[in-house]
Amino acid sequence: MAGCRNATPDDATSIAQMLHDFNVEYEEPSPGPSVLEPRIRGFIREGPKHFLLADDDVGVQGFAQFDFHVSVWSDGPILFLDELYVKPTHRGYGLGKMMMETMVSIARERGASGMEVVTGEDDTAARGLYESFGFENEIEGSDRTRSLFYELEF
Amino acid sequence: MAGCRNATPDDATSIAQMLHDFNVEYEEPSPGPSVLEPRIRGFIREGPKHFLLADDDVGVQGFAQFDFHVSVWSDGPILFLDELYVKPTHRGYGLGKMMMETMVSIARERGASGMEVVTGEDDTAARGLYESFGFENEIEGSDRTRSLFYELEF
Repeated sequence: MAGCRNATPDDATSIAQMLHDFNVEYEEPSPGPSVLEPRIRGFIREGPKHFLLADDDVGVQGFAQFDFHVSVWSDGPILFLDELYVKPTHRGYGLGKMMMETMVSIARERGASGMEVVTGEDDTAARGLYESFGFENEIEGSDRTRSLFYELEF
Repeated sequence: MAGCRNATPDDATSIAQMLHDFNVEYEEPSPGPSVLEPRIRGFIREGPKHFLLADDDVGVQGFAQFDFHVSVWSDGPILFLDELYVKPTHRGYGLGKMMMETMVSIARERGASGMEVVTGEDDTAARGLYESFGFENEIEGSDRTRSLFYELEF
C-alpha cells in the first residue's frame, strides 16, 4: 500500500541518490549524492525546502521537493515545486499523482494562492500530470502565449 | 543622468502604480495599486523581496523586483527576478540593461550561483535583453529542450 510522508533527516541519503539519478537520467549535471546529501539534510532540519516521500511496502520510491514563496500578487504564499521524481521501476502506478494530491492539500491548508513548477518541453509525462491538475503554461491575456523559464549560471 | 538605487518605503506608491500598469499593459489581472502598495511597503521594510529603481533627472522610470532562493544544486543562492519594468515613454534608452547589470553585480557580491526569470514567449524585448546577458531557456542535456513555467491558481 503506497502512501506519502514527510522526510526525516535519516531520509537525506536516499533523497540525494534519487536527485542525482534524476539529473543523470535527463543528462543534467549533478555534483553527486555526497554533495547533495548534507544540503538535503540541512533543508529537512531547518527549511526552507520541504521533502515529501512516496513510500510503498518495500521503501521509498519517489519524492517531491518544494517550498513556499511570497508574492506581491497575493496575500497567501505560492507552493513552488522544485523537483518531482519517481524511480523508473515504479512509474505508471500513480505515485506522482499521489504526491501531487498531497501537495495540493498542503498548499491549501497553508492558505496558498497557487502552485508553480518548471518542466522541460519534451517531458510529456510531467506536463500531462501537471495539466491534469489544472496547471497552465499560458500567460493570461488575449495572446495566451507560453511562459518560458530562463536561467543564467555564473 | 540615469542611475539605480534601492527603494525605500516611500517608493512603495510609485512601484505599486508601475506594477499595476505593467499587468494592465500585458492584459494580466491586477488587484489595483491600493492593494499592491502595502504589500510592497512591507517587502521593502522586512524583505524578502528587493526593489531596485531606475531613476533619471525627472524621477523613477522603472523598477526591478527580485529575491534570493536557496537551491539544492548549489551552495550559493539564486537571484530570482520577479518583475522588470520600464515606463513605456522611457523604453529603448538602456534602463532595463542598467538594472540587469546592477542585479548581476548584486548577485555576484552575494555569492549567488546564478539568476532565474520567467517571461512570455512573445515578449521579444525582454527575451532579447535576458539572452544578451547569457540567460538560456534551454535545459542542459543532449535534447536542449525548452524550460516551461507552469502555474496553478487556487
